[in-house]
Amino acid sequence: MLVLQINISNNEDHDSGSDPPGTAAERAVERSLAGRRATYAAEIERLVEATFQLIRESGEVEPRVSEIVRVAGLSNQAFYRHFRSKHELLVAVLDSGIEQLASYLTHRMAAAPDPVAATREWMRGMAEQALNPEAAAATRPFALARGRLAESHPEEVAQTERRLTEPLRRAIQEASRMGLLEAGDPGARAEALYHLAMGWMQARLLEPDGRHRQSAEQLENFALAGLGAVPAQRDATAGA
Amino acid sequence: MLVLQINISNNEDHDSGSDPPGTAAERAVERSLAGRRATYAAEIERLVEATFQLIRESGEVEPRVSEIVRVAGLSNQAFYRHFRSKHELLVAVLDSGIEQLASYLTHRMAAAPDPVAATREWMRGMAEQALNPEAAAATRPFALARGRLAESHPEEVAQTERRLTEPLRRAIQEASRMGLLEAGDPGARAEALYHLAMGWMQARLLEPDGRHRQSAEQLENFALAGLGAVPAQRDATAGA
Repeated sequence: MLVLQINISNNEDHDSGSDPPGTAAERAVERSLAGRRATYAAEIERLVEATFQLIRESGEVEPRVSEIVRVAGLSNQAFYRHFRSKHELLVAVLDSGIEQLASYLTHRMAAAPDPVAATREWMRGMAEQALNPEAAAATRPFALARGRLAESHPEEVAQTERRLTEPLRRAIQEASRMGLLEAGDPGARAEALYHLAMGWMQARLLEPDGRHRQSAEQLENFALAGLGAVPAQRDATAGA
Repeated sequence: MLVLQINISNNEDHDSGSDPPGTAAERAVERSLAGRRATYAAEIERLVEATFQLIRESGEVEPRVSEIVRVAGLSNQAFYRHFRSKHELLVAVLDSGIEQLASYLTHRMAAAPDPVAATREWMRGMAEQALNPEAAAATRPFALARGRLAESHPEEVAQTERRLTEPLRRAIQEASRMGLLEAGDPGARAEALYHLAMGWMQARLLEPDGRHRQSAEQLENFALAGLGAVPAQRDATAGA
């Protein structure tokens, strides 16, 4: 929903300024469109929220359209005005969930004292999605559906995932520049950490076995060693 | 299909020995069952083969049951005698594919001069599934369907995947024992390499971008550094 939110706030900035350029008729069109845009944005938000709610409650990643519109209090027509298919809605839902996760990770990273600690916080924040029971219940359907959505909407899913790895890529790049990590392609290394964290998370969400916390630390140490962290930075308790 | 092959060969061993114990009636039952078992095994093999063929040809991971039985030259009844659902057949197909991949990886590893080189061969063999166009076409539907099958049959998929990581786990353990890798939990480290390789492979199968060979080498170096390979072993060209 990131793109949508940007649209809305751009629109508000526009209204709050002086009169927009163009003829009165053009401005009237703009006003009408602005009202319509706000209505549509609210409808889309209700559909996405309803889908989140149904997924959380049922654990199923593909609620029926009839259920979604019932919970959202909207019509089938409203649904298909905004989304050509249920998969298209699910991509928007995934996007919204990833946006929340990216924001959570960015906050964790911002509190870290240096970019290696920030990299570690990224790994810990990802692991937390499987370690925390509430987060795990919310994350499980998405982690499992990711492959299916990547198959039907590869571009959108890839773009969404870049939002997760971009802050990590920057932290790795900065840490290398400071000599805290060995030199290396920051994009490829951020991708490696993403595969590690996502694969580990998916496995844990499928097979709860009670040894997760230790297993998360092992993965974290592996990731830091993979990045060539200098020895003083490689202790799993550093920055904790 | 591994379990099935074990059943068949057990049965052959049994027939080729001296008379089995029990009464004549019991032996007659055993003979009848043995014949039935061979027929069923052949039917299952044809269904699995037909499904492989359809998946390769169409790129779709879920051919219709009617198509599968047509290509296999069997009836719907024969299908449901062996599999309660199409997903159950797909697990058998995945199992058979993973068995072939495990055998390929084991052969590559066996030719390596030491266990670190064997670990590297495992990573290279996995990467080859995305780098080689023919292998990629065959692997793509399974890599994408893995999440879906893991959701419907978590136990079977986990068991199948352990067949892939077990030889890797042994190589890592041996390399640590020889002081060629840092000490660490070999199971957790084999799992980390599995997530790296599988995540990378899935991403490459979805987004071909022509820089795969270089990207595979970066991943390999990351994995070896993650394992704490001694410096002389960490060059990407070692053992090539």
